[in-house]
Amino acid sequence: MDESARQQATAAMHASVPFLGRMGLEVVELAPRHCILRAPFDRNGNHFGAMYAGALYTLAEVPGGMLFNTSFDTARYFPLVKGSQIRFRRAARTDITVEARMDADEVVRLSAEADEHGKADYDLTVELRDTDGEVVAEMTSTYQLRTHGSLT
Amino acid sequence: MDESARQQATAAMHASVPFLGRMGLEVVELAPRHCILRAPFDRNGNHFGAMYAGALYTLAEVPGGMLFNTSFDTARYFPLVKGSQIRFRRAARTDITVEARMDADEVVRLSAEADEHGKADYDLTVELRDTDGEVVAEMTSTYQLRTHGSLT
Repeated sequence: MDESARQQATAAMHASVPFLGRMGLEVVELAPRHCILRAPFDRNGNHFGAMYAGALYTLAEVPGGMLFNTSFDTARYFPLVKGSQIRFRRAARTDITVEARMDADEVVRLSAEADEHGKADYDLTVELRDTDGEVVAEMTSTYQLRTHGSLT
Repeated sequence: MDESARQQATAAMHASVPFLGRMGLEVVELAPRHCILRAPFDRNGNHFGAMYAGALYTLAEVPGGMLFNTSFDTARYFPLVKGSQIRFRRAARTDITVEARMDADEVVRLSAEADEHGKADYDLTVELRDTDGEVVAEMTSTYQLRTHGSLT
């Protein structure tokens, strides 16, 4: 992904959810079933000199939506986040990055399940890493793939 | 708490963690072992017309720090958040409020435990409600009370 494509994807994300623009969340890589995002340390700190928990949660949650957009037929499905479990491992004192992937087989399987039942649940686990590669937090979220019109 | 005290407490919170100012988080009530906070729907929406998950997580997490500040001896202790489990129950389509309380007995017990061991873990469970009083999300976070100097 070249710099121009990165900037375009980042701008689209900020336009979609302004909350993400205000924290300066950046798209580093975005491809079918793969994304890398980065949250800048500057402007997301807390009063202890670490990145604030809400910024870390957000960085960990957004890949679910990004993977959905690049992996599923968005004309047919939309995603809901049902819940998340986050564990903070160490203070985050640099820019923080998250990378997430989804298997092609799982996309096929979940799409078929949603076609049959109107919905399909799946978990996504991600690690947040600092610029030394150390894991500062890990999170598992449960998403639900829904067919349009399946929510009353 | 009168309006002037609310504004002062809100401004102090925003100065401490600018992330919270950018989402417009407001202190509604703040007293020993009790707080009420509100997140405005405006500026915190997602592309589905609901409040974004990261804003809801943040609204649910901040009471831990606010209760710490009003309940414990801050000259002696500081809090860490170790992790959170959030469950989203329904789409949040209004301003959202959270209320949190802590028992006086628990403050005494946790302070004594931290004095003895340098740390004491505790859970805090909160519900997020819309302006109709419906629960849109619930979260349990694990905090750790630490004595200053107990982290190497």
